[in-house]
Amino acid sequence: MKKIDGGVTAAKGYQAAATAAEIKYKNRTDMAMVFSEVPATVAGTFTTNVFKAAPVIWDRNIVKGKGTAQAVVVNSGIANACTGEEGDRYCKLTADAAAQALGIATDDVLLGSTGVIGMQLPIDRMQAGAKKLATLLKSGIEAGSEAAQAIMTTDTHKKEVAFEIEIDGKTVTVGGMAKGSGMIHPNMCTMLAYVTTDAAITHEMLQKAVSEIVVDSFNMISVDGDTSTNDTLLVLANGMAGNEMITKEDASYEKLYEALCAVCTCLAKEMAADGEGATKLMESIVEGADTKENARILAKSVVCSSLSKAAMYGCDANWGRELCALGYSGVAFDPMKVEMSFKSGEKEILIFKDGAGAPYDEEEASKLLANDHVQIISKMNMGSERAIAWGCDLTYDYVKINADYRS
Amino acid sequence: MKKIDGGVTAAKGYQAAATAAEIKYKNRTDMAMVFSEVPATVAGTFTTNVFKAAPVIWDRNIVKGKGTAQAVVVNSGIANACTGEEGDRYCKLTADAAAQALGIATDDVLLGSTGVIGMQLPIDRMQAGAKKLATLLKSGIEAGSEAAQAIMTTDTHKKEVAFEIEIDGKTVTVGGMAKGSGMIHPNMCTMLAYVTTDAAITHEMLQKAVSEIVVDSFNMISVDGDTSTNDTLLVLANGMAGNEMITKEDASYEKLYEALCAVCTCLAKEMAADGEGATKLMESIVEGADTKENARILAKSVVCSSLSKAAMYGCDANWGRELCALGYSGVAFDPMKVEMSFKSGEKEILIFKDGAGAPYDEEEASKLLANDHVQIISKMNMGSERAIAWGCDLTYDYVKINADYRS
Repeated sequence: MKKIDGGVTAAKGYQAAATAAEIKYKNRTDMAMVFSEVPATVAGTFTTNVFKAAPVIWDRNIVKGKGTAQAVVVNSGIANACTGEEGDRYCKLTADAAAQALGIATDDVLLGSTGVIGMQLPIDRMQAGAKKLATLLKSGIEAGSEAAQAIMTTDTHKKEVAFEIEIDGKTVTVGGMAKGSGMIHPNMCTMLAYVTTDAAITHEMLQKAVSEIVVDSFNMISVDGDTSTNDTLLVLANGMAGNEMITKEDASYEKLYEALCAVCTCLAKEMAADGEGATKLMESIVEGADTKENARILAKSVVCSSLSKAAMYGCDANWGRELCALGYSGVAFDPMKVEMSFKSGEKEILIFKDGAGAPYDEEEASKLLANDHVQIISKMNMGSERAIAWGCDLTYDYVKINADYRS
Repeated sequence: MKKIDGGVTAAKGYQAAATAAEIKYKNRTDMAMVFSEVPATVAGTFTTNVFKAAPVIWDRNIVKGKGTAQAVVVNSGIANACTGEEGDRYCKLTADAAAQALGIATDDVLLGSTGVIGMQLPIDRMQAGAKKLATLLKSGIEAGSEAAQAIMTTDTHKKEVAFEIEIDGKTVTVGGMAKGSGMIHPNMCTMLAYVTTDAAITHEMLQKAVSEIVVDSFNMISVDGDTSTNDTLLVLANGMAGNEMITKEDASYEKLYEALCAVCTCLAKEMAADGEGATKLMESIVEGADTKENARILAKSVVCSSLSKAAMYGCDANWGRELCALGYSGVAFDPMKVEMSFKSGEKEILIFKDGAGAPYDEEEASKLLANDHVQIISKMNMGSERAIAWGCDLTYDYVKINADYRS
């Protein structure tokens, strides 16, 4: 597996476009389109929130229904969530506009929205934006990175990544883009992530891979514990790499699985590191748990702890907070067996063992915590299962961004 | 039921004392003692955290064992949690010192600690402090409020309350003190709460009342989602009011239950309102839920949402965040049936109905949210169950307090 440049348009047969449609933001791009030359098999996972945004319901119907699509239209600024029947109607109108301009069917168009909840989309601008995007696509300008830029809300930078593998002697590429910064929490976040591949794979196998991969990638990040109404991960596979169709869990499937996993994990980590107001990435590694699910719960509990997050911001090795977070996670374990250390780069400091604090140098620990990527390693010594969760520190800027997000 | 002045020493036969023992803080009181003239029946509830502080284990043994006690010794500054066997030994030594000075048995002394996790107590000062407190008690100086002051950590003010009722023609008093500001979350918080009453009641009935009451009082508050290692609620009943011993769920039990409930609810609300860095009390009222437990989960989800809390701080009527919190709570409901309004004092503004936003004036809503007590009312229209949860807004000061708590 080789990391390559590019993102959502790295795989064969995909194009993207971005435009400033003035949905809510001014003076920036806020609509993007991803297009596959040929119909692509599509798999996805969506928010578990009871309040599902209109585009989430739209996409789910397509993914669970015919299972193929050819375009994705995404806007930032307004989430089209909690918008009643009007919100549903606006989905149809937007997809209609894109479909007509692209010369495809309405149900070949997937949708995504992110931004303020409860506000109605300016439908005229959405329709005009969709047409404009189709025109840009036809002009053949390459705009994968611009698309990744257009779907951002409070993100500080675009998120894209791509990997190359070989299957049946053919080069297969998997690339993706994502956005997400606030309202990020396990079980899909206000995160939109779009992954494309030119691999040939059945809908069933693609959905199987995606459903499994999301558990240890996007569902293992948290910025603030709020699970959004709009979370969407869509994976399109258009088969243009020319490999033999993947229909079962064979070696080809495993290779593709790994590449999909690498793309999803990279995007997930980038989202956590770019959490609203964040100054550093917190990586919580749990080892030696009795079950995989318990390892996940423990790892997540640490990155979700407001007190741990605030202490991380202050570079304060107040490790009682991380231990405390393990303790209230709901997982049973023997507190006397737990070992905890902080790590950054090659430097690792043991801080807790045998039920009490280990001797360490406070100044050294504080210096370690000042890095922009800090690992908290918890050895449970209860079994052999392992999980990683990603989060970020809690800062003044998080409060600032969210105390008046709408203005 | 009548609200009266005072707190933990309002009931007959209770005394309290406070002293500056220099456990960790300088220039303030940091140790307190509550003493009952005669042995009192004691009930309690404790943290569910796997890492239970040494004093929690100490108290639990007494409450579940002989079920009576005569004194409580509490320190602030150091939590005596994650301190291994040494922590347990220091509990015994502190209780020994207090028992000897008071002329009672070691297992008549309950203990409480709050503060930094992982640090060992300066045992010499704890012992000296316990002796000093016993001497102060014997001098007869009334110091209930001073005790409430001494147990504070980042609290901005002491928390005490008392109510009077009549049972069998006798005046029965229930009073209490509490501390808690950060690391506050459902399932007991870094909250210490001590309630005393002169009622005569069996251990079994007292524990039954306390276990029930805690569910809708202390377990319904959240400041930051972190469940502490030290949470403790102890209720002492010394029988000095002279009422007939309460042995079953009769009218006397109901009266006492109500008074205990009033004391616990008052203290819980005060804790939420005094959450670290808080500028206002958020009261989430859920009505019309299908089950009581679902009502509680929904109500709590709103006060636990970082995004809702930050928007409250900014007086931003960004109601999508509160709805979103209901939606990810894990409770199933029909989103089209939900009605939500913001309320403060007599003013109530409907903001969501029939699956979409209701027309309201943004400026008016923002003005309402600027009050120091805001209610978020969610009508689920799924049944007839109701619950209330209390929390506070998320502010710059929360981050400031917790980014460098130990310095």
